[in-house]
Amino acid sequence: MSILIKNGWIVTQNNKREILQGDVYIEDHVITEVGNVNVEAEYVIDARDKIVMPGLINTHTHVGMTDLRGVADDVSLDEFLQRMWREEARRGKKEIYEGAKLGIKEMLRTGTTTFMDMYSDEDATAKASQELGIRAFLGWGVVDEELTTQEGNPLENAEKFIIEHRKEELITPLIAPHAVYTCSEETLLKAKEIAEKYDTLMTMHISETRREVYEHRKKYGLRPVEWLNKIGFLNDRLLAVHLVWLTLHEIKLLSAHEVKVSHNPTSNMKLGNGGSMPLLEMLQNGLLITLGTDSAVSNNNLDMFEVMKIAALLHKNERWDASVTTAQMILDFATVNAAKALNINAGSIEEGKLGDVIIVNAREPNARPLRKDTVVSNIVYSLNGLNVETTIVNGNIVYSNMP
Amino acid sequence: MSILIKNGWIVTQNNKREILQGDVYIEDHVITEVGNVNVEAEYVIDARDKIVMPGLINTHTHVGMTDLRGVADDVSLDEFLQRMWREEARRGKKEIYEGAKLGIKEMLRTGTTTFMDMYSDEDATAKASQELGIRAFLGWGVVDEELTTQEGNPLENAEKFIIEHRKEELITPLIAPHAVYTCSEETLLKAKEIAEKYDTLMTMHISETRREVYEHRKKYGLRPVEWLNKIGFLNDRLLAVHLVWLTLHEIKLLSAHEVKVSHNPTSNMKLGNGGSMPLLEMLQNGLLITLGTDSAVSNNNLDMFEVMKIAALLHKNERWDASVTTAQMILDFATVNAAKALNINAGSIEEGKLGDVIIVNAREPNARPLRKDTVVSNIVYSLNGLNVETTIVNGNIVYSNMP
Repeated sequence: MSILIKNGWIVTQNNKREILQGDVYIEDHVITEVGNVNVEAEYVIDARDKIVMPGLINTHTHVGMTDLRGVADDVSLDEFLQRMWREEARRGKKEIYEGAKLGIKEMLRTGTTTFMDMYSDEDATAKASQELGIRAFLGWGVVDEELTTQEGNPLENAEKFIIEHRKEELITPLIAPHAVYTCSEETLLKAKEIAEKYDTLMTMHISETRREVYEHRKKYGLRPVEWLNKIGFLNDRLLAVHLVWLTLHEIKLLSAHEVKVSHNPTSNMKLGNGGSMPLLEMLQNGLLITLGTDSAVSNNNLDMFEVMKIAALLHKNERWDASVTTAQMILDFATVNAAKALNINAGSIEEGKLGDVIIVNAREPNARPLRKDTVVSNIVYSLNGLNVETTIVNGNIVYSNMP
Repeated sequence: MSILIKNGWIVTQNNKREILQGDVYIEDHVITEVGNVNVEAEYVIDARDKIVMPGLINTHTHVGMTDLRGVADDVSLDEFLQRMWREEARRGKKEIYEGAKLGIKEMLRTGTTTFMDMYSDEDATAKASQELGIRAFLGWGVVDEELTTQEGNPLENAEKFIIEHRKEELITPLIAPHAVYTCSEETLLKAKEIAEKYDTLMTMHISETRREVYEHRKKYGLRPVEWLNKIGFLNDRLLAVHLVWLTLHEIKLLSAHEVKVSHNPTSNMKLGNGGSMPLLEMLQNGLLITLGTDSAVSNNNLDMFEVMKIAALLHKNERWDASVTTAQMILDFATVNAAKALNINAGSIEEGKLGDVIIVNAREPNARPLRKDTVVSNIVYSLNGLNVETTIVNGNIVYSNMP
């Protein structure tokens, strides 16, 4: 397939963070020309008065739960988890597949072209992802065998899932140990072994709540990140999620091992986790920050535009300083940083990059005025996912509401 | 005009907060039937699988600034104000009228049927409001004469504006003293006199920043609310905006005078004002809470759905407790509470209420599943203003994107 997007405002996210007015040509799976393009294409899209930008990358969700949207709001974390377990006990592969389809449709509708997921039954999510054409990093959830509700052994299930899916173009399987309070040292080290054996990423919830940190320290004498360092689990394959309750010492450990970060501010705020991820100290220590929505139960949507805005607001508010986050910084989290964390050739609109591109309708009043010097601000602070008009993944048009 | 909305999920916001499945009939300016309606109408709208709910009420903005969206982000408050003044020096009635038109279109597009504004040149905003058909509470901005950039005397301008517009159906003029640092005791008391003489509301920024409180105390020996109480300014005509930095003593003073509150969490967070409005203590003391977007420069959109979500998140996060705000409480702020504060017969879908109704497209994936027990949660936590499909103000369809 070839697609020519004409005359848009191109938010390139290239090294110079250029904003260009011009055309983008995508052939097969790759962006092949940016600027003033004069070729024939199968699909020609008029993007005059529209924003053309890299697809957004959501580095943490549990998309199979999307059909549970709204079932556990405004309650303490204990009650939240109890309600979730009650709901999940009623669910099988069919419900997870339907939940995943709904969530993936929502992501494509709202401009997300790549997501990283954590759940059991990722085979159901893989099926939904393939049918809908999104780029998916699917982490099979692992907990200790005595805690699992999965059929069989979680580690074996994860390994089998990785073997089955590792040759697919849009699906990247990986392993997802759940958390320090559900995974023993043995489970974690086996998960790491599997990741190394098949050269995959790992993702894991770490230090989401105070209780988790408190209980871990009581049990092991160390905070979660200190303990993960001691047992030799930390490495550059790991994308760690939440990281709300961290010491500076832990930040330095994460940095030394080049662990990647998925910041999920909306979910953290909604669950009343308290505090906030120490973003500034993480940046000062060179950690690579990306953004995630978390599931539609703790967020309650999968809109990366909204997460970008809330991430920016949270830290301005925490630090009593509007300058600590900038629109450009936040857009980087959701594009170039995330592409780097997932090791994909995407996140910017440049020749040779993957054809993961979205077109945003800037005729809606919330996108006006449309100006070169404020377009990044509009993306982060004014728009939302429903402004997205066309979503292109791997050179295929997978969502469009163009008139 | 008569409008029959058929078969929707009606989020009534009546005293029982009932969710009904059925019809809403609007004749002339008023809702005349709710439930199972069997009459002819000029417009019949099929609302199957859609949400029918009261229009949202935005109690604080400066809509004439909407064209300045994005010009002063991510900078300290000092720099923010300097940039604003630079921009505003370039602007006249024509720019304010165009800004107001853009902002009002955005509000109607995103489900706001009534707004309260504060600005000079509210005659330009009145013209835009009338042309677009929104219900508008327009507060002519007043500062001390030696500080004003208005032509003539602000108090006289305000009085003239009130006299000219007080007989209009959709426009309600009022007076808007800017803040304690721009209005002397004399200015404030004259503003109050004008409000009493013409029986109008007043609105005013109060205790938005720490500096404001600190400087006021240094100058007058009292915190802003204490001083306003002492000079006899506080009364039940006043809708006070921001109120971030308050003591419990001040909350009790506001409560004793039945002052109404406009909470603007997005703007407060974005400007890095620090802390957060003491919502729980205000509720415990019986204050009536409503929500505002603030201007498109400090927000940067006028989407009340987004403000509802951010208000809920902010307080859960501040109190480390997900249960301190609920979706129903927040929806009340933006509907019934605001209608009460503005003394309009709106905010709920009941017989005899004004025909200020919105219809929300629940076919978008972010609105699914659509269930009676989660629809209020979806409104507050999952949807955004672009889900709105039809906006009806005073019985007139003023926005629709129905296919």
